[in-house]
Amino acid sequence: MDDSLPLSLRSQGYPASPIRKLIPYAKAAEAAGHKVFYLNIGEPNHDTPAAFFQPIHAYQTPHLPYAPSQGHPELLIAIQGYFQRLGYPLEKHHLQVTQGATDALLFSLFTIANSGDDILTFEPFYPNYLAFTAQLGLTLVGIPTTMENAYALPSLEEMETYLTPKTKAILISNPSNPTGRIYTEEELKRIVNFAKKHQLWIISDELYHTLTFAGKKATTLLAYQKVYPAIVVIDSVSKRYAACGARIGCLINTHTPFMECIFQLGQSRLGVSLLDQLGAAALYRLENPSLAHLPALYEARRDKVINFLSAYPWIHYVKPEATFYLMLSLPIHDSNHFCTWLIEHIHLDGERVLITPAENLYVTPGKGKNEVRLALVLEEEPLLRAMNILVYGLQQYMTLFEPLNPSRPVHE
Amino acid sequence: MDDSLPLSLRSQGYPASPIRKLIPYAKAAEAAGHKVFYLNIGEPNHDTPAAFFQPIHAYQTPHLPYAPSQGHPELLIAIQGYFQRLGYPLEKHHLQVTQGATDALLFSLFTIANSGDDILTFEPFYPNYLAFTAQLGLTLVGIPTTMENAYALPSLEEMETYLTPKTKAILISNPSNPTGRIYTEEELKRIVNFAKKHQLWIISDELYHTLTFAGKKATTLLAYQKVYPAIVVIDSVSKRYAACGARIGCLINTHTPFMECIFQLGQSRLGVSLLDQLGAAALYRLENPSLAHLPALYEARRDKVINFLSAYPWIHYVKPEATFYLMLSLPIHDSNHFCTWLIEHIHLDGERVLITPAENLYVTPGKGKNEVRLALVLEEEPLLRAMNILVYGLQQYMTLFEPLNPSRPVHE
Repeated sequence: MDDSLPLSLRSQGYPASPIRKLIPYAKAAEAAGHKVFYLNIGEPNHDTPAAFFQPIHAYQTPHLPYAPSQGHPELLIAIQGYFQRLGYPLEKHHLQVTQGATDALLFSLFTIANSGDDILTFEPFYPNYLAFTAQLGLTLVGIPTTMENAYALPSLEEMETYLTPKTKAILISNPSNPTGRIYTEEELKRIVNFAKKHQLWIISDELYHTLTFAGKKATTLLAYQKVYPAIVVIDSVSKRYAACGARIGCLINTHTPFMECIFQLGQSRLGVSLLDQLGAAALYRLENPSLAHLPALYEARRDKVINFLSAYPWIHYVKPEATFYLMLSLPIHDSNHFCTWLIEHIHLDGERVLITPAENLYVTPGKGKNEVRLALVLEEEPLLRAMNILVYGLQQYMTLFEPLNPSRPVHE
Repeated sequence: MDDSLPLSLRSQGYPASPIRKLIPYAKAAEAAGHKVFYLNIGEPNHDTPAAFFQPIHAYQTPHLPYAPSQGHPELLIAIQGYFQRLGYPLEKHHLQVTQGATDALLFSLFTIANSGDDILTFEPFYPNYLAFTAQLGLTLVGIPTTMENAYALPSLEEMETYLTPKTKAILISNPSNPTGRIYTEEELKRIVNFAKKHQLWIISDELYHTLTFAGKKATTLLAYQKVYPAIVVIDSVSKRYAACGARIGCLINTHTPFMECIFQLGQSRLGVSLLDQLGAAALYRLENPSLAHLPALYEARRDKVINFLSAYPWIHYVKPEATFYLMLSLPIHDSNHFCTWLIEHIHLDGERVLITPAENLYVTPGKGKNEVRLALVLEEEPLLRAMNILVYGLQQYMTLFEPLNPSRPVHE
């Protein structure tokens, strides 16, 4: 029976993570003594505020119990305080602490949609949206946004062409991972009107809310919960506080029947890590000044990278307004092949670069095959070394695999 | 629209946790100045070994990154060491670290069964089995075991009567939460033969493997993985090491296609809490002597409780051979009502007791309505006070609600 052990059909079609699937090549390169610049995973490289570790180092109780399933009281209060400072007071019973944004997304999707239903999102998207919908038997429907149009949202009429009787929700990354777009007030209103008109839920993944550049501010969809309660807002400590290892997120919604199911899902997960919650509470309590320098830090990196890449007219992009991601359109035809080849075969002085192929950031067939996502999560100097490797590799690749490409650089 | 915001059908039918749903009554009692004995949640009350906290308190890196998605290397090695000491050497690629046993169960069920498939388990069961199967669109099918028969497993022929073309797996708690049974070698072989004969997977939840009494030992189904690889074994630090707040579990299987899907599920969860994993690694490294006293501790409690309850011939039970649970059959007709009434209305000198109604430990209609589950997770003295409240409350309840019950105690 060995090889014929029956597995589920859904396990066969489960999407591999485009962000993580190439890590074995990077590990092999490291094992061979090379240095790898990891631009694949959106893991901020600023220090985790020391405040996180204080309550954890101070924890002296000789017993480590389950935390309450809705969330540790200290964390719930700290989250309320954080959103109060942003201008959005929250009731405690509108909050659920989750294991990262992941569980917040899974809980929300489960509560909103049945197996077989459709969830709309905007392409390109955070690839785990595809994984999470697949876990719940949902179909992720991609509404295209384009680099040419600076990833602006389509018109109400265009969005309506993607509706089916099974459409239950719109999932939006606001500001957008991976495009770096800050949606305008007008765009957000358009989404809310669209949702309201068609009785759809909105799930707003707001992990990058505070990481915006050039003085521009993002608008949280909490601003619309009063006029339309079918809006779920998701937050996490991972990106803002560089605490990815803590796995603490939360979701916010004001609709009682929705939250009742969320609380039950939370109960069946028993509770979220106690120590991580104590640390996260300290993070949410931090006043903004201690983090105020971060947007400028990532903005400066973005500018350095953009400045470097602007010398290559066959590399296209839109300057991100937020987040630490950058989508690139390259003169290639198979970004999976390119990214794999790049980490496997290209180094400069023993240094290599790992980036994310963008095909799985789309569900529309054929899209993203010439695109990659970079996470600009290195200091400026290594970041520019990584860009140098990327451009060098790309030039080699075009010579080898895209020789008839009219965008092929003529120098070398 | 407010009240008519559309939610999924599956959210409506999602089972409330029978273990946790009565907690609000307990909190209300506490708020009124009463003391509550929590016998509802299986949270061991021995100290978490200090080893857990050492690497966490020693963590001085100013950054808290994602742990590798398969698990932190230190933890993987520590788990290998633990099972090596038990006599079961494991390959690293047969292991996935998970957020508690919960994710291990969810990952396994997803990989084995499609929405609409059947999963067999033995009644009474750990109630979250119903929650986890519901999350994945699976039907949990209960095969009865009975107190009268000491919860022994049924014959192969009887198990076969529960098979449908959609049956994909048998989920077993080994030793059993909530019955405390240690399955015999013969019973485990029967399960393996049954699974082999019908191409079913076995998911063996072995959280209580080491918590066995009177010198009896439980057998891990790892012992059968070589002859039948469709066996998934699940472990966790929660119970053995009293580290429920850490949310660290793992699953073990040797079948490559199964593990490939598991690893992808792990990748889409990004990683498990870094600090909790470092602490858990220290726990798995502990040599058995430091925990050797625990079974005797829980065995002594069991004996005190059994000795106390044996004075009431209208309370029935089977003496548990393992775990810290105890199922009671009571002369009542609605254990949900009884358990709610008990916490709400009964106290002795300001002390109350919270226990779990057993109806949701069964899926067979009508079963469990006269049963409750106790988790014996208090020191002996408060445990006996809690038993006293339970029996006092039961006597009151029978007078009030079961006056025609032939089992009604004649005294009072």
